[in-house]
Amino acid sequence: MTMQTTTTPQAPVAPVRGRLRPLGQSEVRITGGFWGDRQTVNGSATLEHIQSRLESEGWLGNFDRAAAGTLPAGRRGREFSDSEVYKFLEALSWEIGRTGDPALEARLRTVVARVAAAQEPDGYLNTMFGRPGQGERWSDLEWGHELYCLGHLFQAAVARSRTRPGADDGLLGIAVRAADLVCEVFGADGRDAICGHAEVEVGLAELSRATGDPRYLEQARVFVERHGRGTLRDIEWGRKYFQDDVPVRDAGSLRGHAVRANYLAAGAADVAVDTGDDDLLGALRRQWEHTVARRTYVTGGQGSHHQDEAFGEDWELPADRAYSETCAGVGSIMFAWRLLLAGGDPRQADLIERTLYNVVATSPAPDGRAFFYANTLHQRVPGVPADPDETSPRASSSLRAPWFEVSCCPPNVARTLASLDAYVATADDDGVQLHQYAPASVRTTLAGGRVVAFDVETDYPASGAVRVVSRADAATAAPWTLTLRVPAWATGARVRVLPANGAAAEERAAAPGTVEVRRAFGPGDVVELVLPIEPRLTAPDARIDAVRGCVVVERGPEVLALESVDVGEDADVSRLALASGAQPSERDGRVWIEVVTRGDDDAGWPYGGPDEEPREAASRTVPLVAYHEWAERGPSTMRVWIPTET
Amino acid sequence: MTMQTTTTPQAPVAPVRGRLRPLGQSEVRITGGFWGDRQTVNGSATLEHIQSRLESEGWLGNFDRAAAGTLPAGRRGREFSDSEVYKFLEALSWEIGRTGDPALEARLRTVVARVAAAQEPDGYLNTMFGRPGQGERWSDLEWGHELYCLGHLFQAAVARSRTRPGADDGLLGIAVRAADLVCEVFGADGRDAICGHAEVEVGLAELSRATGDPRYLEQARVFVERHGRGTLRDIEWGRKYFQDDVPVRDAGSLRGHAVRANYLAAGAADVAVDTGDDDLLGALRRQWEHTVARRTYVTGGQGSHHQDEAFGEDWELPADRAYSETCAGVGSIMFAWRLLLAGGDPRQADLIERTLYNVVATSPAPDGRAFFYANTLHQRVPGVPADPDETSPRASSSLRAPWFEVSCCPPNVARTLASLDAYVATADDDGVQLHQYAPASVRTTLAGGRVVAFDVETDYPASGAVRVVSRADAATAAPWTLTLRVPAWATGARVRVLPANGAAAEERAAAPGTVEVRRAFGPGDVVELVLPIEPRLTAPDARIDAVRGCVVVERGPEVLALESVDVGEDADVSRLALASGAQPSERDGRVWIEVVTRGDDDAGWPYGGPDEEPREAASRTVPLVAYHEWAERGPSTMRVWIPTET
Repeated sequence: MTMQTTTTPQAPVAPVRGRLRPLGQSEVRITGGFWGDRQTVNGSATLEHIQSRLESEGWLGNFDRAAAGTLPAGRRGREFSDSEVYKFLEALSWEIGRTGDPALEARLRTVVARVAAAQEPDGYLNTMFGRPGQGERWSDLEWGHELYCLGHLFQAAVARSRTRPGADDGLLGIAVRAADLVCEVFGADGRDAICGHAEVEVGLAELSRATGDPRYLEQARVFVERHGRGTLRDIEWGRKYFQDDVPVRDAGSLRGHAVRANYLAAGAADVAVDTGDDDLLGALRRQWEHTVARRTYVTGGQGSHHQDEAFGEDWELPADRAYSETCAGVGSIMFAWRLLLAGGDPRQADLIERTLYNVVATSPAPDGRAFFYANTLHQRVPGVPADPDETSPRASSSLRAPWFEVSCCPPNVARTLASLDAYVATADDDGVQLHQYAPASVRTTLAGGRVVAFDVETDYPASGAVRVVSRADAATAAPWTLTLRVPAWATGARVRVLPANGAAAEERAAAPGTVEVRRAFGPGDVVELVLPIEPRLTAPDARIDAVRGCVVVERGPEVLALESVDVGEDADVSRLALASGAQPSERDGRVWIEVVTRGDDDAGWPYGGPDEEPREAASRTVPLVAYHEWAERGPSTMRVWIPTET
Repeated sequence: MTMQTTTTPQAPVAPVRGRLRPLGQSEVRITGGFWGDRQTVNGSATLEHIQSRLESEGWLGNFDRAAAGTLPAGRRGREFSDSEVYKFLEALSWEIGRTGDPALEARLRTVVARVAAAQEPDGYLNTMFGRPGQGERWSDLEWGHELYCLGHLFQAAVARSRTRPGADDGLLGIAVRAADLVCEVFGADGRDAICGHAEVEVGLAELSRATGDPRYLEQARVFVERHGRGTLRDIEWGRKYFQDDVPVRDAGSLRGHAVRANYLAAGAADVAVDTGDDDLLGALRRQWEHTVARRTYVTGGQGSHHQDEAFGEDWELPADRAYSETCAGVGSIMFAWRLLLAGGDPRQADLIERTLYNVVATSPAPDGRAFFYANTLHQRVPGVPADPDETSPRASSSLRAPWFEVSCCPPNVARTLASLDAYVATADDDGVQLHQYAPASVRTTLAGGRVVAFDVETDYPASGAVRVVSRADAATAAPWTLTLRVPAWATGARVRVLPANGAAAEERAAAPGTVEVRRAFGPGDVVELVLPIEPRLTAPDARIDAVRGCVVVERGPEVLALESVDVGEDADVSRLALASGAQPSERDGRVWIEVVTRGDDDAGWPYGGPDEEPREAASRTVPLVAYHEWAERGPSTMRVWIPTET
């Protein structure tokens, strides 16, 4: 908490203070590789796909009907469908910021105009409530999602204002009018209530940062503080579903609905940082630690229940019934990133990396037009391919689907990918911290006017070598510190400094955490980080009952999986186990593991005396697939956790 | 399928043919012991408790409002609340049959009169539909539960007609009028539709048996055959939820909602038996085998999902998220009992015993006034005691609750316990088969007029000794065959014949399955079965991922559990594991097991290199509790499956 932000970055999160300053799109550009490729597909295919569905589902048309005064007749979609339009606008804004695509700019302006036409004179904006024949405004705070939708509107307006400051499209004005109404209705002297789905908090906090209006931060603070006071009705799953069971600063863990929990935590972190509330920030850090230690899948995914899309109890992490909603992964990144900016703990960047590779990258199909909503870690029965022209009613569908009745995930992935450059690096007074490894170009100015400019060259995670090459346009005289994250799994990493002037290379070990290189970087100076990317076996804590006696194969940041299409004849992953003493190895660009087939055919009652299981000695070596690539070759069964033979 | 039933037993199920003939309440009486005690509590406390709640919740009052013509104003309860009144009437009927209690008789007549007053002139009976301001009759077959409710009405009327034939209370007439309307509306030439919750099939089939009217059996057949044709709307969980995905005779397993699935299978079995449809019966047997081998908990419980109260996929049997609804256990007993009567396979009696001891007996509190709805096998966090004056919104509550918003389970337990005498024994042409062991008195007449009369003396399952003592009122000249079930777990069982005339005792081994003793039983002749009741370790099939590396301790038919109140200081069952090589032992009337404490305090990320788990060598011996007795000493954590130390 030592540094004041001086200029607003072109980034989703811009705290007024914090240990690290985020570098936005104008300072960091991903130039290719794993994430660059996904950004390209996102910008060229996914955004178009989303808009097409927003139109065909009538969710955009709802705004036209509102403007025409014909609602509620013909309204389509669920109570939160407005929010998907706003997330789409946010994604468009970041993509325009990233590429400057004029076609997208025109598209954004058209959509904003349709939204603007639906706003009421007093700022109210929602197509589901407030008109004759509809529920009254704010009459169903448990399930109505009005404030939730506005939170996404605010984030969209912030994205737009940071990527095209002063643009005359009007999106920021829409947000400001709506936010003013929210403050009027729900201010400290107003209605003592919260929304059943957190999101308005994080939206208001960022809108306050973007506009400089402290009322929005104050309103965010009020909403955060009101959680846990039981103002929402009790429901079957308890008020923890809404995080209305325990005040935020008193809770020990994230709990309840996993998206709600993370969005609230992100908003609370914004409030804590901007108001200097270290007590609240400390509570959030402790909740994060607890949640990561006991309620997070090896993929980084969160949410163990299908029923209420919620966190389970500690250690309750079923592989086959993992919900691990894509949106919860996005929310977890939002929360972890805020803690990282505030305190600089590299474990938060570790979790972000893990979640990006194994949740966010898993959701979209390679063509960017179908998505996982839930992300199971164990598929027992091959899924049924989704009809590309239909809307899937099944969030828990086992194959990617083009659209869902509740379709929060596709635009959430889109806005995350479009803004991903802003999660790669940060700066502090003395240097730049590289948190995520991708081919990139970085240029920023540190205190004292030191210009830092370098390229990142890597094919990570295909290999573990990351080269940071100082550019000619960097200042050369003043030293600064390059901080590289060494993931927790990267035992044995090494860092090398290769001066351009022909001086001897320096090499040293880089322990997990971070490694720093401080020098007066000259053009062509290279810092090379070599991460041990070799596949490894990972075992779970003994209290994670659901995967006891199993291991997972990981390679770098990627979790690998055993998929039936790779197994051969019987194509049944349920009877495979790791051969005794087997270790993964790489060959032909894939990772292989030796397995045996276990178990017998049915013998009636499946519970009997211990150690009666017959075993086949014959083993075979099968290839694994990156978890984010599973189900790309048609229906299959799959497991991330592989039983050991013992 | 060799034997024709000659007289209708005082029993819930009376097939027109089958391998075994059920013996009803007039032929078998449980006289005490484990089940007799529970029947006493059921009759004295539970029935009163249920009626009190049916009144205070307004579910009985709904019938009064219907009669007064004031509905829908003031209607209370969910769309299926009528069915709880009918299950209560069924329970009352069996209890009156069992005890002849005049107070219960008066109570039944009063309730029947209130139901009768609500029936429409054309036979329609439902308090939720059909009046101005309500949904139209049969307008919501997916969720309206009208036919489901009538199925329970029919079962109640059958119970009454078998326990008090010709009684003038009018219950049978109400059922007949309603059934006639159902046949008119939904007959083969009528509306091509089914109810979203199976139950009317089993009710109609039994009503046909009770009245001799073949139309009801035909209607049951039509409903069974219509399943799997997709006449119900698709829903998020798929049509398998309603068993409307695949025709009954084509399915490979029970699937979807576990209560619906079992009720439908029971009704289909009735239809198959009474129409001589061996193809259908064979399909049902295969589904039962599959379901028992791959989709049933060690407790006999069924239903792996909270979300849709449904079966999971094969091998998907999470302990901590076990739903194992009490009603699914009741439904499983209904289905298994019908298969047992049809084919005589003792494995069905094994499953019934397992389900009775570990699901049905688990649900009610000792005082008979609180119930488990779901029956988890692993409680991670101590539950919050239910307010005895409140209605619990939480089916998955971790402690027994007096009543639920959906309160199907309490009256389902009540009707099962009240009719339990009828599940103890059967007869065939040559003898009597004893399926369940309880202190009992049995008297029936076999082909050729041979009177069989004996008492069963046992404190099973406290001990494993069961004595069958032939009575003086039995015919003595003609030999007959006593068949005793030997449970699958009872390896090493022995049977002894101890003639009253002082002749030498005969003793032989009795292998799991059944053991037969054929002789001309004279008064005082004793057959003694000794089952090895000693506690034993049981391991799961390697494909049941959720409990890999665990064992359960069983003792006779009872599954045992580790409950935190027995563990001592730390009272945390999550870190306990079986000590290496430990075996359960009995001492002071309890079963004990040696455990060690495993695992470390939190170390951040819970996934790491294999075999890094520190272990405490110190072990201690802790007592186990019968699973059906858990949570009777206040909030606790509990686990049925105990990790092994390896």
